[in-house]
Amino acid sequence: MAEQKKMVEAITSMDVDFSQWYTDIVRKAELMDYTSVKGCMITAPYGYAIWENIQHILDAEFKKAGVQNVYMPLFIPESLLQKEKDHVAGFAPEVAWVTQGGEEKLTERLCVRPTSETLFCEYFKKIINSYRDLPKIYNQWCSVVRWEKTTRPFLRTSEFLWQEGHTMHETAEEAEEETMRMLNIYHDFYTNVLAIPAVVGRKTEKEKFAGAEATYTIEPMMHNGVALQGGTSHFFGDGFARQFGITYTGRDNTQKNPFQTSWGVSWRMIGAIIMVHGDNDGLRLPPKIAPIQVAVVPIAQHKPGVLDKAREMTDRLSKTWRVKLDDSDKQPGWKFSQYEMQGVPLRMELGPKDIEKNQCVLVRRDTREKIVVSLDEVESKIEELFGLIQENMYQSALQNLESKTFTATTLDEFLDIAKNKPGFIKAMWCGDSACEDKIKDMTGGVKSRCIPFKEEKLSDVCVCCGKPAKHMLYWGRQY
Amino acid sequence: MAEQKKMVEAITSMDVDFSQWYTDIVRKAELMDYTSVKGCMITAPYGYAIWENIQHILDAEFKKAGVQNVYMPLFIPESLLQKEKDHVAGFAPEVAWVTQGGEEKLTERLCVRPTSETLFCEYFKKIINSYRDLPKIYNQWCSVVRWEKTTRPFLRTSEFLWQEGHTMHETAEEAEEETMRMLNIYHDFYTNVLAIPAVVGRKTEKEKFAGAEATYTIEPMMHNGVALQGGTSHFFGDGFARQFGITYTGRDNTQKNPFQTSWGVSWRMIGAIIMVHGDNDGLRLPPKIAPIQVAVVPIAQHKPGVLDKAREMTDRLSKTWRVKLDDSDKQPGWKFSQYEMQGVPLRMELGPKDIEKNQCVLVRRDTREKIVVSLDEVESKIEELFGLIQENMYQSALQNLESKTFTATTLDEFLDIAKNKPGFIKAMWCGDSACEDKIKDMTGGVKSRCIPFKEEKLSDVCVCCGKPAKHMLYWGRQY
Repeated sequence: MAEQKKMVEAITSMDVDFSQWYTDIVRKAELMDYTSVKGCMITAPYGYAIWENIQHILDAEFKKAGVQNVYMPLFIPESLLQKEKDHVAGFAPEVAWVTQGGEEKLTERLCVRPTSETLFCEYFKKIINSYRDLPKIYNQWCSVVRWEKTTRPFLRTSEFLWQEGHTMHETAEEAEEETMRMLNIYHDFYTNVLAIPAVVGRKTEKEKFAGAEATYTIEPMMHNGVALQGGTSHFFGDGFARQFGITYTGRDNTQKNPFQTSWGVSWRMIGAIIMVHGDNDGLRLPPKIAPIQVAVVPIAQHKPGVLDKAREMTDRLSKTWRVKLDDSDKQPGWKFSQYEMQGVPLRMELGPKDIEKNQCVLVRRDTREKIVVSLDEVESKIEELFGLIQENMYQSALQNLESKTFTATTLDEFLDIAKNKPGFIKAMWCGDSACEDKIKDMTGGVKSRCIPFKEEKLSDVCVCCGKPAKHMLYWGRQY
Repeated sequence: MAEQKKMVEAITSMDVDFSQWYTDIVRKAELMDYTSVKGCMITAPYGYAIWENIQHILDAEFKKAGVQNVYMPLFIPESLLQKEKDHVAGFAPEVAWVTQGGEEKLTERLCVRPTSETLFCEYFKKIINSYRDLPKIYNQWCSVVRWEKTTRPFLRTSEFLWQEGHTMHETAEEAEEETMRMLNIYHDFYTNVLAIPAVVGRKTEKEKFAGAEATYTIEPMMHNGVALQGGTSHFFGDGFARQFGITYTGRDNTQKNPFQTSWGVSWRMIGAIIMVHGDNDGLRLPPKIAPIQVAVVPIAQHKPGVLDKAREMTDRLSKTWRVKLDDSDKQPGWKFSQYEMQGVPLRMELGPKDIEKNQCVLVRRDTREKIVVSLDEVESKIEELFGLIQENMYQSALQNLESKTFTATTLDEFLDIAKNKPGFIKAMWCGDSACEDKIKDMTGGVKSRCIPFKEEKLSDVCVCCGKPAKHMLYWGRQY
C-alpha cells in the first residue's frame, strides 16, 4: 500500500482540511479546471461525462412524466425581469448585465438569465388561451449566471449548468401535484442513482424561492455534516400569472389565471457525489453515473497473450457497460491509484496466472474487496457487484446522515450542538422567522433546512423563543 | 382535398413568397416562437425535439471518432479575445458585452462567447506539456451570441445553438486529417440522415474563418436555389498556438507548437431541412430526425373497437419508432393536415373497415402515396417505407441541386445566369479575391461558395478577369 501511494500525488486528508480535500479531488480526478474568467470554470471531459450521465437518466424520467424540452433566450430585458417584484428583488443584485451589442450601446440593459421564470411567463402568455392549452410542462437544460463573490467548483460558480422546469396548470391542486411529482423524481434519483440519502421537506417563508408560494427541497448531508441544497421544486400559485396577465378561458367560459410551478437541479449534484462518497484516495462514483464503470488493468502486459485477453474482455464487457482498457506503459500500481482517484466502481486485474486459470480479479472501489471470478461468470458477477456497491454506498451515506443528526429541545442544547457537533439539528419551531434570524446570528450561520414531510413532536415549544411550537425543523450549516 | 384544406390555416405558397413561406412554416409547424429579446427566439418543443434528434445522432458519431465533450465558460475577457488579431477583427464588431456584474462595474469587459477558440487555447496551454498529451479532441454543445442586425429563425439569430469542436495535434498532417474527418462526418450526416445533398470544398482566402489557414465547408442548396453554409471545419496551423504560447515537448525533446482545428454545425440545419424538403403543405422531415415518425389517426373513432385497436397499434409500433396517437376530438381531415404541416413521414389511418380486414392505410408525407398494409406485416412495411422515403427525399433534393447548377465560361454568361437563374454557378477563377469582390458587386451579392474537392476544367481563364484560371469555383447567393 505504501509503495503504491508514492506513485500518485497525495491529496489532502479530509480530516485535516475538508475544503482543501474537496479542491484536490476536483482537480486530481480531472473533473474541472480554472479559467481567467472570474468565478467560471471549465468542465473537463471526465467531469462533463458525469454530467451527461446525470442528464441522460434524469431526462428520460422527465419525458416519462410528460415533460417537453424547449430552449429560451439567454438574455432577459430589464423591464421583463422587473415584472414580478419579489423575484427581481431576489435576483437583481446578482445578475450580469449586457449593455453593449456589437458597436451599439443598448437602449435597454439585458441581464444574462439567472433563472427563466420571466421568459417562460412571457411565452405562456402567448400560447395559453383556453383550458385546452393546459397543462404546459416544459423544461430546458442550459447554463445560468449568478454573479458570486466567492466561488467553489460545482457548488457556487458565477455560471453553472442546470435544468429548469416550468409548468402551467388549470388548478392549484394540479400544480401542487406537479411540484411534488418533480420533487419525487429528484428524490428517487438521489436515492436510487446517486446513492445519496436526504431529508426532504418544505422551506420556511424566509428560505423559499423569490416569488414562490412554497418551495420544497432535497437536503443531503455531506460527509462533514454540512448540508447541500440538492434540488428544489416551487409552487407559485397564480402570482406570476397575474403579474404577467396570463389568462385562459376555463371550462365554465370565464377568464382565469393558470397556476405555475418551477423545479431545478444543477451540477451541484457532482459536488454532492464528491462530498458524500469521496474518501482520502479520491472519488467514489455510484455505478450508474460513472463514466468508466470497469477499468481493465492488465498485469505483466508484456507477457504473451495478456493484452489480447484484456482486449477480448474489454470488448465483451463493453456490450453492457462503459469499460476502459488501460494498456499504457505505466505501472499497474499507478493505474490502480489513478482509477481509485477517479472513483471507478470496479477494477478488473488480469495477469498471466489469471488467464491460465480462466479467471480475473475484480476490485471494488467502495470496500477495496478483491474477488476472484471465473471469466465464464464475469458478467453476472459484475451485475451483482454493482448492486452491492450501490447499496453499500447508500447505507454508508445513510449511516453518516443518521449519526450526525441531533435533537435539541432547549436553546443551550441547540447552541452546544451547533458549536461542537457538525450535522443536522432537529428542533421545534414557533413559525416566526425572527427565531431563524436569531439562531443564525447566535450560531454564526446555522439556518433552517426544511420542515420535513415526516415531522416528529420533540417538545411543545420553540427551541428558540419558548412560544408554542408549530413545526419541527431541520437545521444545519450549508454550502 | 379542397375540403381538407379549409381546416388548416393556409400558408403562403413558396412560389409566391419564399421568405414568407419559410416564416409561415416555422410558426405553423410549431418549431419556434418570437420573444421581446431582440434577435433571439424560443425553440418550441417540436423544434427542440428535432434538435435533440440531430444532437443524439451526431454526438454518437463524434464519440466514435474519439471526441470528448467538455463545457467552457460563457464569457471571454476582452484581453483574451484580443490575443489573436485576425480572430478579434472578425468577431469584435458582433459581440455582446457584459459590463456590470451584480452591483459592481467590471474592470474588464467580458464578451458573451461568439465562438470559443480563445477559451480552448487558454485551456490547452495549461494541459498540454508533452507529445503524450496529444491529441486533444474536445467538443461542446452550447449557445453562442453574435449581435445580428437582421435576423431570421434558425438561419441568423443573435443567439444560436450549435456544437463547436476544438482539437490540438502533434503535426500539421494529423490536424489536417482531423479537419477532413469531421467534415466527412458532417457530410455523411447531411447525406444519410438529413437526406440533403451538398457541394463540399474549400473556402477561398476571402471567405475563410477569421484566423484559420483553411476552411472547408458543406454547401447545400435550398429549394429556391440559394445556398446555406451548412457546416464548416477549420485548419488553424499553429497560428493560435503561437499567439497563446502553447508549446509541448516533442518526441525529439525540443519545444514545439501543436496544430489546431475547429469545426461546427448549428441549428441552421433545421433551416436547411425546411428549405430543402418543405412544400406548400408544410414541413417534410427525414424519418431519422422526425420527432414523430408515425402519426396514428383513428377514423370514426367513436365506433366500437377503433380506439382500442389504434392504441394497440401505437403500443406495438412504439417499441421501434417514435409514434403519436391522435385520439383528440378533432376531425380526421384536420389531423391529416396538421401532421402534414409538421412533416410527419408516415401517417397510419385505421378505421372500422380496416380493422375488419386486419389492415391499415399508410400515407407517405413525401409522395402522398396511400398504401394498404396487413396489420401482420406493418412493421416490415414501415421499415421499408422509411428507406424509400429517405431515398426519395434525397433524390428530389439532388435533382433540385443539379437542375439549378449552371456553368458560366464568360462574364456575360455569368451575369445573365446570376440575374435570371437562381442556383449555383460553376466558373473558373484566377485565385484573386479582387475578382470575388467584383462579381459580388456586379451581381448584387453572388459570392464564392467553395473550391470543390472535385474540380472540373471548364475553360483556361478566369470568368471575371480573363487571366489564367487556377481553380473552379462554385458561386451563389447565400442565407
